[in-house]
Amino acid sequence: MFEQHRDTLEKALAAIAARGYWSAYPESPSPRVYGEGAAERGKEAFESYLGKPFPLEQPGTGSWIGAERSPYGMDLGVTYPEPIAEELIAAAGAAMPAWRDAGPEARALTCVEIVNRINRRSFELAHAVQHTTGQAFVMAFQAGGPHAQDRALEAVAYGLAAMTSSAASAHWEKPAKGEPLVMDKRFTVVPRGVAVVIGCNTFPTWNAYPGLFASLVTGNPVIVKPHPRAILPLAITVLVAREVLAEAGFDPALVSLAAEEGQGLAKTLATHPAVRIVDYTGSTEFGDWLERNARQALVHTEKAGVNAVVIDSTGSWRGMLANLAFSLSLYSGQMCTAPQNVFVPAGGIETDEGHKSFEEVAEGLAGAVGRLLGDDAKAVELTGAIVNPGVLARVESAGELGETVLEPRAIRHPAFPDAVVRTPAIVRVAAADEDVYGRECFGPVSFLIPTASTGESLDLLRRTVKARGALTASVYSTSPQVLDDAERAALDAGVNLSCNLTGGVFVNQSAAFSDYHGTGANPAATASLTDPGYVAGRFSIVQSRRPT
Amino acid sequence: MFEQHRDTLEKALAAIAARGYWSAYPESPSPRVYGEGAAERGKEAFESYLGKPFPLEQPGTGSWIGAERSPYGMDLGVTYPEPIAEELIAAAGAAMPAWRDAGPEARALTCVEIVNRINRRSFELAHAVQHTTGQAFVMAFQAGGPHAQDRALEAVAYGLAAMTSSAASAHWEKPAKGEPLVMDKRFTVVPRGVAVVIGCNTFPTWNAYPGLFASLVTGNPVIVKPHPRAILPLAITVLVAREVLAEAGFDPALVSLAAEEGQGLAKTLATHPAVRIVDYTGSTEFGDWLERNARQALVHTEKAGVNAVVIDSTGSWRGMLANLAFSLSLYSGQMCTAPQNVFVPAGGIETDEGHKSFEEVAEGLAGAVGRLLGDDAKAVELTGAIVNPGVLARVESAGELGETVLEPRAIRHPAFPDAVVRTPAIVRVAAADEDVYGRECFGPVSFLIPTASTGESLDLLRRTVKARGALTASVYSTSPQVLDDAERAALDAGVNLSCNLTGGVFVNQSAAFSDYHGTGANPAATASLTDPGYVAGRFSIVQSRRPT
Repeated sequence: MFEQHRDTLEKALAAIAARGYWSAYPESPSPRVYGEGAAERGKEAFESYLGKPFPLEQPGTGSWIGAERSPYGMDLGVTYPEPIAEELIAAAGAAMPAWRDAGPEARALTCVEIVNRINRRSFELAHAVQHTTGQAFVMAFQAGGPHAQDRALEAVAYGLAAMTSSAASAHWEKPAKGEPLVMDKRFTVVPRGVAVVIGCNTFPTWNAYPGLFASLVTGNPVIVKPHPRAILPLAITVLVAREVLAEAGFDPALVSLAAEEGQGLAKTLATHPAVRIVDYTGSTEFGDWLERNARQALVHTEKAGVNAVVIDSTGSWRGMLANLAFSLSLYSGQMCTAPQNVFVPAGGIETDEGHKSFEEVAEGLAGAVGRLLGDDAKAVELTGAIVNPGVLARVESAGELGETVLEPRAIRHPAFPDAVVRTPAIVRVAAADEDVYGRECFGPVSFLIPTASTGESLDLLRRTVKARGALTASVYSTSPQVLDDAERAALDAGVNLSCNLTGGVFVNQSAAFSDYHGTGANPAATASLTDPGYVAGRFSIVQSRRPT
Repeated sequence: MFEQHRDTLEKALAAIAARGYWSAYPESPSPRVYGEGAAERGKEAFESYLGKPFPLEQPGTGSWIGAERSPYGMDLGVTYPEPIAEELIAAAGAAMPAWRDAGPEARALTCVEIVNRINRRSFELAHAVQHTTGQAFVMAFQAGGPHAQDRALEAVAYGLAAMTSSAASAHWEKPAKGEPLVMDKRFTVVPRGVAVVIGCNTFPTWNAYPGLFASLVTGNPVIVKPHPRAILPLAITVLVAREVLAEAGFDPALVSLAAEEGQGLAKTLATHPAVRIVDYTGSTEFGDWLERNARQALVHTEKAGVNAVVIDSTGSWRGMLANLAFSLSLYSGQMCTAPQNVFVPAGGIETDEGHKSFEEVAEGLAGAVGRLLGDDAKAVELTGAIVNPGVLARVESAGELGETVLEPRAIRHPAFPDAVVRTPAIVRVAAADEDVYGRECFGPVSFLIPTASTGESLDLLRRTVKARGALTASVYSTSPQVLDDAERAALDAGVNLSCNLTGGVFVNQSAAFSDYHGTGANPAATASLTDPGYVAGRFSIVQSRRPT
């Protein structure tokens, strides 16, 4: 079954080894790619869920719950089965042996089928992601759809590569006095146990899929616990996974949904003795709690960080400003990868348009953001809406943190009058104010920080990232020496670095199969999406040997 | 440098993928293999250490300490630099960047050179292992020398394979409207941080080398903290490693010795904020403590277990008894892999020599051990000496645990009159006495347990191993169905299984490059020596990208 996906798996395995450009799922929402009418059917499918119980049948169901409200201003009104944790975990555990016995290849082929079917629902998922995260539609389509699907397939490929890196059986013949010693050996991949994936509000699919598929392909049943504000995208995902698993003859309890309205279900699930893997994306506070308390489980967390930009000099003043303005504006900076701290020498920088003072850099950046978001109708397609009241409060009080370089602006969304939309705030703070910029200020707030020199900028990058973590770092310089120094600082701090981005590649975007998301080498995350360390602990190898 | 080891690495990489028979270091102590005079020179080298300060120069040295006493009855009188933990850790950390920058291949080649030089000192190490562990000489040579060296090389190969499974650089070209987006990317392996290896009393080299070399090859400096009773073998190891590192132009502080007389140095080192990896072999109690308390580190432990043998039937009555007798007698059962619980149906078993009642099985096993160890001079070459007073106390009080099937016997060692030597005790206990056989009784004590049926035997195997862990399990049966059932029980319990061992392969021996030691799937160990999960968390990948 699903034998036709072998080719996809082979390409994915080649891609994770070569790390060049590859994608299995087209990012363009064009009808030429996804077919005529696909967009309309997806919208209808999304709308068909609103105000109703979600069509998910699973064991361990109590009452029906759900309180999602779109950041664009309306209640979704979808309800989901409230899980009885013990029953969900028991059903997951019971489903495991047959899934284990199916072996790595059958599991990987089944996972590809699941992702392919999710891909066919990309429009439906785009609307679900848009109206739970506040992302603009095209971004919700890309990041919530094909990009997330590529990350899922990438995790499947890493899992398969790890499980099959050594032989499943061996003939062992050891020379000995007289007769050689001869044994036949079998090596079986054994899953770690029930896995829980704890989703986040802003990227419910993109951040959940790697853990979900890394656990599933390595033989573990997965309970998906979405953020209370972003259930629908993962409910659709679970529905598709269960449908494929059942068709393939497996127990659909291998993937189940654990929806909640915010009563702390994640704690209950993550610390249950039978739960052996936890994948989490979200706040540092709860991530740290999980690492401390879910002691019976392998815990992978992706938490907050203080992403840094070091500006030393540039060969493209306008390209740099436009690129940075885009990175600050995209989804109103509500990305764990968005830049926060921009370090610039107080004495200014050299550019292809001559020397620019610190003040000119500040004005240039503010101006670039202003121009990019000058037209309200176009601006909202870039910023989307503010995802929750916490982010809104931070951007509204950003001015209290330092000297305002760019005032955030409220925009009225032309299509959704109740949407809360804000353009980014830029605040100047002193290099000495590490208590301000040395912690994450999630949302459309960035800090412009004058330093004594680029050397000091790199020191501050190194220090803040080592202390508080970061998912991205970025440097602008025309000096090979400075670029080398920045690379060393990034290696020391354990953060992925982008150099001289002045075109269509942005520091807050990472491409599956080529760019690593996080490193595991700083406090922002325990592993990368996806590297060998992300998949290896999810399974063991158990051997059996007998004389030939 | 050390380019000549590429061939060794390639063979090791092929071996870990194929898992058939392969060995890099000959296990025979014959002069035909190790050269004329090698044995004598090794003995002299060992003797030259006795009663003197060990010739190790390293930073952070306080006074000179050491209180090793041979289980064969004499004080070694060797003293070692007492480490100042802060200075040792600081020196290790400072040595790391240059080792990181050398890259995976240079590190792997250097590690092979270290292991090769250790191999040349196998006789010297054999004496050091014999007189710290109590192993008989040939076993000390093999398990402490070539077998440990093979495990070291295996860890180097796993580390290299994991670090090089994806490209170190990539050219990324994404189709886009207008010009394609083009980036050059570099991916650098970044070590996790300072590693600590905590050695054990019984297999100081065999159990320490995998962690030592897995950490070192992945870029981490390693502080080796031997058991206070078994310092010398690891001191020689550290000496060789530092010598090779210095010759290769690296800071010898990459490998250092942290000797102690038992003041709790392991706790200090393992919980130091700068220590990021801990590898440990020893008691469950301290292993659990490390897992709970060394929260800043990746902790790999190999702890105790309740290894099980299920006897259902056999096609070789004499072969089975001889094989089991050897496994119970070897090094007086002081192996984490030695069988402890032997489950036999109360109604007896079918054999090639007819039906045997439970009592006949008990007598047969006791008789086989008695015959194997009947000659004192030969017996001590198998049993070695009792390693410490705790083991002695357990074997002497074994009779209190149930009905004695075989009384342990004190033997006077012909060459070492003060050696404490004991043959194994076998005790019959009821299946209901899980409080007795359901926990580890380390040393020459095994339990013979009558069960209602082989089905019950397998249930007890499954239950005890899931609860308390095991490093080995073994089954004897002529029934394919029972062997299949045993394999399923072993998969469920997550323990490696040996079937019908009646010849020269023993359940307590595992061959590097083919047999996994432990699984990580039960409480006895967090990972296997060695599998992908054992190496993966020791490093991260940090990327840098820039427009082409």
